[in-house]
Amino acid sequence: MSAPRRVLGIDPGSRITGFGVVDLHGQHRQYVASGCIRAPEGAPLPERIRAILDGIAEVTRLHQPTEAAVEQVFVNVNPASTLLLGQARGAALSALVLANLPIAEYTALQVKQSVVGNGHAGKEQVQAMVVRLLKLNGTPQADAADALAVALCHANHSQGALSALQHSGLRLRRGRLG
Amino acid sequence: MSAPRRVLGIDPGSRITGFGVVDLHGQHRQYVASGCIRAPEGAPLPERIRAILDGIAEVTRLHQPTEAAVEQVFVNVNPASTLLLGQARGAALSALVLANLPIAEYTALQVKQSVVGNGHAGKEQVQAMVVRLLKLNGTPQADAADALAVALCHANHSQGALSALQHSGLRLRRGRLG
Repeated sequence: MSAPRRVLGIDPGSRITGFGVVDLHGQHRQYVASGCIRAPEGAPLPERIRAILDGIAEVTRLHQPTEAAVEQVFVNVNPASTLLLGQARGAALSALVLANLPIAEYTALQVKQSVVGNGHAGKEQVQAMVVRLLKLNGTPQADAADALAVALCHANHSQGALSALQHSGLRLRRGRLG
Repeated sequence: MSAPRRVLGIDPGSRITGFGVVDLHGQHRQYVASGCIRAPEGAPLPERIRAILDGIAEVTRLHQPTEAAVEQVFVNVNPASTLLLGQARGAALSALVLANLPIAEYTALQVKQSVVGNGHAGKEQVQAMVVRLLKLNGTPQADAADALAVALCHANHSQGALSALQHSGLRLRRGRLG
């Protein structure tokens, strides 16, 4: 029996950081939680950083994920926005590092390809697919849906043969199982 | 008697984060420590984030600063570099937030203006002035010198009349001291 895996997906943003928690039972994925961490608008940067750190710390404390997956952000046309986004993403990564979670990163293209089957899918398509795959009764807010999609993408990417072995606690030694 | 103030200056960078610790005794500034935190080159982003978090946590644990000052970074021409720099700065700010330090931010222009008297001073001029103001026996590495300069800039900016009152524990109540 492999230990149960619980993935925390994160969609970082300078104003809203989406999070989504999904359990993996073999090929089955089960919704656990999702939501948005809002940085207080107009507040000084350290306060907004604190909101992200505290929010993710609270999510990891409550839901005890075993690993994390973070969306790689687009570089914006506006350098100041890119810098802000980078700082918010740095805070999100810091919170995950401090929670001692293994962290995987995926581009938006990878996430959409993996979850919708089309790397250029729109936000609504991602939301609809997340609802369908996780059998949700309602549609999560866009940032929360993106975060759930990142978690689902990670589930798909990390459940290849080798990953499955590694997660079951077995290791390959010179090509043989040990 | 006001409590002694110890400023931790930080010069964030995606590869090297400079730090400098300075004590303020009235108008006198005393060097405490400085150095560089190096993010392992070529390592995955989470590892580099961890190096910054751990490095700053170690510095704050060792030197127990009472406040922090962080240089505002330039937005780079290259958006990918700007994003990287933003993430590193986000990690540095996270470490300071987690250490519960009040955080002030200064632009490079403000730092150079305050320490050298010329907002467009070169790195060597900043280094030379830091050596002179803190009566150092050697010249610190450029990033460490920049961090010390940020700390000195903060000392100059925060020692106006009101700041001095606030730091002495007195508060203005409707314009009167309470």
